[in-house]
Amino acid sequence: MSSVWGRNLKISVFGESHSSAIGVIMDGLPAGIRIDMEKVNASMKRRMPKSADYSTARKEYDNVEILSGFFNGHTTGTPLACMIKNTDAHSHDYEDLRFKPRPSHADHTGYVKYDGFGDYRGGGHFSGRLTAPIVFAGSIAEQWLSEKGICIGAHIASIGEYADDDFTQDTTIQDFDSLPDKDLAVLNDMAGKKMMEAVSLAKAQGDSIGGVIECFATGVPAGLGDPFFDSAESVISQMMFSIPAVKGVEFGAGFSISKMRGSEANDAPLIKDGKIIYKTNRNGGILGGITNGMPLVFRVAVKPTASIAAEQDTVDIIKKENTTVTIKGRHDACIVPRAVEVVRCATALCLADLLLEDRKYD
Amino acid sequence: MSSVWGRNLKISVFGESHSSAIGVIMDGLPAGIRIDMEKVNASMKRRMPKSADYSTARKEYDNVEILSGFFNGHTTGTPLACMIKNTDAHSHDYEDLRFKPRPSHADHTGYVKYDGFGDYRGGGHFSGRLTAPIVFAGSIAEQWLSEKGICIGAHIASIGEYADDDFTQDTTIQDFDSLPDKDLAVLNDMAGKKMMEAVSLAKAQGDSIGGVIECFATGVPAGLGDPFFDSAESVISQMMFSIPAVKGVEFGAGFSISKMRGSEANDAPLIKDGKIIYKTNRNGGILGGITNGMPLVFRVAVKPTASIAAEQDTVDIIKKENTTVTIKGRHDACIVPRAVEVVRCATALCLADLLLEDRKYD
Amino acid sequence: MSSVWGRNLKISVFGESHSSAIGVIMDGLPAGIRIDMEKVNASMKRRMPKSADYSTARKEYDNVEILSGFFNGHTTGTPLACMIKNTDAHSHDYEDLRFKPRPSHADHTGYVKYDGFGDYRGGGHFSGRLTAPIVFAGSIAEQWLSEKGICIGAHIASIGEYADDDFTQDTTIQDFDSLPDKDLAVLNDMAGKKMMEAVSLAKAQGDSIGGVIECFATGVPAGLGDPFFDSAESVISQMMFSIPAVKGVEFGAGFSISKMRGSEANDAPLIKDGKIIYKTNRNGGILGGITNGMPLVFRVAVKPTASIAAEQDTVDIIKKENTTVTIKGRHDACIVPRAVEVVRCATALCLADLLLEDRKYD
Amino acid sequence: MSSVWGRNLKISVFGESHSSAIGVIMDGLPAGIRIDMEKVNASMKRRMPKSADYSTARKEYDNVEILSGFFNGHTTGTPLACMIKNTDAHSHDYEDLRFKPRPSHADHTGYVKYDGFGDYRGGGHFSGRLTAPIVFAGSIAEQWLSEKGICIGAHIASIGEYADDDFTQDTTIQDFDSLPDKDLAVLNDMAGKKMMEAVSLAKAQGDSIGGVIECFATGVPAGLGDPFFDSAESVISQMMFSIPAVKGVEFGAGFSISKMRGSEANDAPLIKDGKIIYKTNRNGGILGGITNGMPLVFRVAVKPTASIAAEQDTVDIIKKENTTVTIKGRHDACIVPRAVEVVRCATALCLADLLLEDRKYD
Repeated sequence: MSSVWGRNLKISVFGESHSSAIGVIMDGLPAGIRIDMEKVNASMKRRMPKSADYSTARKEYDNVEILSGFFNGHTTGTPLACMIKNTDAHSHDYEDLRFKPRPSHADHTGYVKYDGFGDYRGGGHFSGRLTAPIVFAGSIAEQWLSEKGICIGAHIASIGEYADDDFTQDTTIQDFDSLPDKDLAVLNDMAGKKMMEAVSLAKAQGDSIGGVIECFATGVPAGLGDPFFDSAESVISQMMFSIPAVKGVEFGAGFSISKMRGSEANDAPLIKDGKIIYKTNRNGGILGGITNGMPLVFRVAVKPTASIAAEQDTVDIIKKENTTVTIKGRHDACIVPRAVEVVRCATALCLADLLLEDRKYD
Repeated sequence: MSSVWGRNLKISVFGESHSSAIGVIMDGLPAGIRIDMEKVNASMKRRMPKSADYSTARKEYDNVEILSGFFNGHTTGTPLACMIKNTDAHSHDYEDLRFKPRPSHADHTGYVKYDGFGDYRGGGHFSGRLTAPIVFAGSIAEQWLSEKGICIGAHIASIGEYADDDFTQDTTIQDFDSLPDKDLAVLNDMAGKKMMEAVSLAKAQGDSIGGVIECFATGVPAGLGDPFFDSAESVISQMMFSIPAVKGVEFGAGFSISKMRGSEANDAPLIKDGKIIYKTNRNGGILGGITNGMPLVFRVAVKPTASIAAEQDTVDIIKKENTTVTIKGRHDACIVPRAVEVVRCATALCLADLLLEDRKYD
Repeated sequence: MSSVWGRNLKISVFGESHSSAIGVIMDGLPAGIRIDMEKVNASMKRRMPKSADYSTARKEYDNVEILSGFFNGHTTGTPLACMIKNTDAHSHDYEDLRFKPRPSHADHTGYVKYDGFGDYRGGGHFSGRLTAPIVFAGSIAEQWLSEKGICIGAHIASIGEYADDDFTQDTTIQDFDSLPDKDLAVLNDMAGKKMMEAVSLAKAQGDSIGGVIECFATGVPAGLGDPFFDSAESVISQMMFSIPAVKGVEFGAGFSISKMRGSEANDAPLIKDGKIIYKTNRNGGILGGITNGMPLVFRVAVKPTASIAAEQDTVDIIKKENTTVTIKGRHDACIVPRAVEVVRCATALCLADLLLEDRKYD
Repeated sequence: MSSVWGRNLKISVFGESHSSAIGVIMDGLPAGIRIDMEKVNASMKRRMPKSADYSTARKEYDNVEILSGFFNGHTTGTPLACMIKNTDAHSHDYEDLRFKPRPSHADHTGYVKYDGFGDYRGGGHFSGRLTAPIVFAGSIAEQWLSEKGICIGAHIASIGEYADDDFTQDTTIQDFDSLPDKDLAVLNDMAGKKMMEAVSLAKAQGDSIGGVIECFATGVPAGLGDPFFDSAESVISQMMFSIPAVKGVEFGAGFSISKMRGSEANDAPLIKDGKIIYKTNRNGGILGGITNGMPLVFRVAVKPTASIAAEQDTVDIIKKENTTVTIKGRHDACIVPRAVEVVRCATALCLADLLLEDRKYD
């Protein structure tokens, strides 16, 4: 297991879907950051489903208890620990599934990893529920980044075949202010309507659907990123691939840059108002693994929810024979809408870690 | 800087394009691995250009000197250090470029990062030359993996618009045995011919072109990968994004999984010959961040070579004014053919680190 | 801050003396360790004062809540988190002390470190209270070590001028079985009686007194320890100097070895019953930073309790002027008796981390 | 193996006594430190024996080659690598010793650790020769510390029964300026004379002798050190116990503080010239694991040289029978004089790492 992340800002997560609590310790936060708990709770709420059309029945957002590292409204510089109690667990639903791994879940691989001792209820430590502590921690980090002029936005780039408008160099962070509280975080509401229809259709058919989330950050100073091995892309991708269901990460033009000529792909520097900017941003704000002062832009591919209503083939791992499994309960037909805030907050953790490495920005 | 990578197998790289040497220390290698230096040298050679059609003039492969950690043909268990002397440097070529960052290179970002003290000659520490120590280290790691039954192959999935045949579940590692020593590591030689034409055309036009490399590994046991933060995808993507020019990484179906329904994307387990395998491999051999025993499959997007012959816009970072830059010397019109071995060897490092974490496979 | 420790078994502690809770996450514990909570609670209890003669008024031992990583009586392999609520806090006692650092405490240094934002109540994160999570974690680790045949004992080597009998090569772990539950963990009860008198006298005079704790472990296999930088001594000393009030650590003959001749200090190997043992153990079971199969023996020096009843000189850090401080409340006149279990459990963490590094003992 | 040390300034050492080279990579050094190679070479020279009275025959000091990370007289911010070739090796001397572990050396423990694959010649990776890269790296770090006003001194506190004068609060760094280049780094030359006699006597008797080194640093700002687990003591002790032959480390009054009353041991703060200092320095400049602005003071116990001329008992590890061993060649009768510079330079590494953690001192 490697539940500790980070070089300068260290994050230790714990918990299983049905353990008594989940949570996170943040180590390395500067002392004296003023924390607005309303903002933290707003982030926690955005991770919760907003519409019954794509998700399970609505419930109240997770209640975060801060256990340490927070005093008189500020961070103390010592570890900031938080806990979220698990209350809504229906553990008995999972007895049947114990030896029948659900396709595309971590049931089989986790069984091998932990020699059968893992907590199999609700996906255990691999549950999407573990993204709640990530959102909490990222939301704290975001408040520090905000003091430094760094803002992070994210939208649903696509669900199935339906794509939102592209983020452009003219897009400002203000365009994204209203996004997080929409049912779907899209720039183009017409595109959003089609996405929602695609999700509803999948849901009606007992199926699920995937999508892509695009994240960007403005105000990121040039100079962040620590090649050879902790390039800005390396740090961010490691974190993104920790989020359950992520199967691809690309920066700037990403995979499509592989079809470009150099003359098209190269971003040329330019003096504007006495500062160095770039004419284009095909590299997503990162050159040689180090930020160049342009907006950071990257996308993550999210696979369709693994849990679907239809009966599926599987095996009995004890009897070593083929069988089938039917997953009870209600599941999100698409997790992309909820994952937007996870990606955004996880990005805050990465940028905080990168920024702390460079003392010159203090 | 973060020139140290790894949790169990630690790699420390050093060197700049024009420093007196580059190299790597490997710490954590098990004692007693028999090392065949011919295989290591074969890997080093594959990173060198094989054809004048896409690359700079041919020169002899890098000569590796092992400094420590190797005794009587075996690893000793203590740090294995290697050095490759830099001999072919034309440092004076770079004086002109000192304050004129080459577009898409790390010149500007490195200047900011190191307050102007970085070694600007030939890309310094950001040079593709630093992939030579990665190939060396990966080649050593591969010999250990090979003892454990793990084999790693890689091919050029595409250059520009031209794609090689897909890797399929029927593809065996034997299909790839001959690849590394072809001019282009492709399964379909007709596709390879078109790729070469595309590169030649770009070269003739003073331009460059990108591509995609696909890597896979067979014999990987189920159970490798350490969520929450060191998922198999996290470990591999961090390493891949350390390789200069990589802008995207995707596993299994990758970005195209975002357009699938769950019923299509889910890989169902199956008993075959008393063992658990999977009917399909959309998840690229990784579920919940842990390997599932199927072949590991992932792709990396490589951007077109940043150095092109045409004059390009840039700035003078001291005078803070717009100017142009012309990059002298000969440069690869496409680095994808040479990067295949880098990706393959870097994957060996990742798998060795993941395998060492799990004592059960010893 | 660095509240994360360990390479293979990672420990993340959190909490302040007066925060809502303190606790620890253990990451890297093997799955399937059977945990006897009675043994854990017995360790927690031993850290509590046993006699009013040297300590504050008796209160019930800390109540540990396990939040995750524990299922059906076994570790799951995922992070094991525990929390201990803080209930007994008299925060108002500390307002007066806020800007008047108590001599020999971390008040002044913590103020500088955290720019005045630290939680100053009760020593905050520097409180001896933070040793409770260490005892919890160490007690869990000990149960795994015990499966591997490793036993750890500790006794009070001295308090003030009064010394216990020496641990010898004939001493067995059985000699120590009864120690932890004595008022003072000593081999020689007469020596213990004199120590207690010395403590009582110090207490009566409004003063405090220090001592030395000796720890040893049997069943430690040869081969543990990872030079160059993670020698067995390095790993253990780093942990020991994390325990508040420890000012010295020595292995085997320790400082007195500096007065020996080589002919006296050298431990000679010897075959006994077909196994390699050593005639003497001047090196405390460690040669070249690696265990040699002999009992591990080391001692830690514990300074007198910093809080004493007498008025002491100090400064006002805001007004920058000299003043005095009187510390209210009841404080242990000697923390050595309670620290014995902390040293013993902290040693279990070190040995577990060292053992996990070496796959050959699985 | 753990040949990588450090959190902010990372050091990777490599090499064996008889490998083709030894060396070190320094990662995390700020860019732009001006390096005076004469000072580096002076440090390297001080590690070499200065007098035939206590040591092997004099030879030229180690010749350091910088391979990377150094450009135009300054650090570049990228990894600074150095190599020292091994030239003087008489490998055949060691064949006889291969299966006969020398008492108090790492021969037996290293054999177990590396399953017999370790390089047994001259102590291999455990050789005192590996302290040469530490001196190199520390000497580089010292030049950066010096820019920040931090100075480090060290002297021989004792050899055998003979003690040098104590370091006092009135001692200044100037008192130590001349020390490193004396035959013995002592304040009191009469004491030094007695020490030398003790060494000569031991040598004449085919024996060896140990000692204690005291190190201190002035100009260390208050606020360095990162509890809970990276207290200033923890960081320094981990490093010191990496130095071969060190068996004890104590800070300030160290083990003797265990015999003090609190009223005696407590260091009281005091305003002097508007600044907070302390009346006494029993805690060696560290309170609660964080520096308090007073001089850092600690001592390390060094065991007598393990290699002595007399025949010693040992075992044959293959035949599993008792035998004897006679160590040929010339060996230092006392390594303390040479270890003074090692301790001093290793301390520079620790202080650089601690200082880099705290951005406030930039």
